[in-house]
Amino acid sequence: MRISEVAQAASVPLTAVKYYQREGLLPPGEKSAPNQTTYDTRHVERVRLVRALLETGGLSVAVTKQVLAVLDADTAPLAEVFAAAQYAMTSSRAQDNGASQESRDRIEGRVSAAGWCSTSDNPGLEAAARALDGLRTIGFDAPDAYLDAYLNAAATAARADVAALHGRQERDAIAELMVVGTVLGDPLFAGLRRLAQQDAMHDLFPVSDHASPAGADIEGAQS
Amino acid sequence: MRISEVAQAASVPLTAVKYYQREGLLPPGEKSAPNQTTYDTRHVERVRLVRALLETGGLSVAVTKQVLAVLDADTAPLAEVFAAAQYAMTSSRAQDNGASQESRDRIEGRVSAAGWCSTSDNPGLEAAARALDGLRTIGFDAPDAYLDAYLNAAATAARADVAALHGRQERDAIAELMVVGTVLGDPLFAGLRRLAQQDAMHDLFPVSDHASPAGADIEGAQS
Repeated sequence: MRISEVAQAASVPLTAVKYYQREGLLPPGEKSAPNQTTYDTRHVERVRLVRALLETGGLSVAVTKQVLAVLDADTAPLAEVFAAAQYAMTSSRAQDNGASQESRDRIEGRVSAAGWCSTSDNPGLEAAARALDGLRTIGFDAPDAYLDAYLNAAATAARADVAALHGRQERDAIAELMVVGTVLGDPLFAGLRRLAQQDAMHDLFPVSDHASPAGADIEGAQS
Repeated sequence: MRISEVAQAASVPLTAVKYYQREGLLPPGEKSAPNQTTYDTRHVERVRLVRALLETGGLSVAVTKQVLAVLDADTAPLAEVFAAAQYAMTSSRAQDNGASQESRDRIEGRVSAAGWCSTSDNPGLEAAARALDGLRTIGFDAPDAYLDAYLNAAATAARADVAALHGRQERDAIAELMVVGTVLGDPLFAGLRRLAQQDAMHDLFPVSDHASPAGADIEGAQS
């Protein structure tokens, strides 16, 4: 098929497909004539995958390229694929190493109290510590109960991530889900947290019940 | 103090502070002489807040500006602040309305089964549905158990978010935590999920125990 048909089959605008191509995110097509290149269903699948990583997952082109390279290296051990997935954080800024030692210690302390087995080079440590630093800029020094709730949430999601891998048999299918599941689990959770917040807010600040004691303090502070 | 002292006090590079200023993210200083403008601790706090939203939270300049405007409108009811926080999704692409109806229905179905009270204009619905669409591009049609694990994780985090608000008395302090907590809870969770995955992987693919039945299928598929 032609490049325009690839775009149509993947439901992705042709300009986006050409952009992926220019950025080296798609494998080359086959020269079928001096002025013609043909593509196949593997290109359609790759276009969909690139779109999911870039647009929905928010990865940069550079990180997407690294992730695809690991996926394409059929001989890469799954441990290496897993490491690539781990480093493909939605926010590439998380790898700046700018978090305070205090916040890193806080996270490591709770992770250790939870009995998790993890290493200090795990990029998640830096990302979580930076978020704690950000919360501290507004004078919110997250208490243990708050951090532990997030740890529990993370453990619940991670168990589901790993359980999903067990549903696949082929190495390539497992590798793909490892990477895409790790990347897209972040926006999936972020979206569901917005929905859960609306529900939790409804319980605590009932719109129709101003006499509720649960919301009294906060409604009193409302201007 | 001078602008360079604001940068130093906030531990943010001067070039970044000047950029925030040029983008209209900082309130103006006070003209103390024809060629001199002075700033105070409120500017230091604002620089830290802007950095947390932009760099750690990954918000765009435009969304950060909207969020600050709501925070600065002292008379805005907390419900409006909450709405602004909800719409300040880490990925602004989440507001494209590009998710499939099928995925939106899937999410609404699980949310309704969980008994959550939420409305269909909640931006989280679109974000979560897009993530599901992305997972489907690699042939992973998330089973109910997977989605429900993420719903549970989101509910756990959202309850902690709301509980944290109850620890604050002043309207401004509540509003600030509503916004910053909503924005930074995403990277906090994302980081902790990387740590939790390492732990969950360790249990299921034990490096030192190749005979483990739990990891057998997947290790067998490894090349």
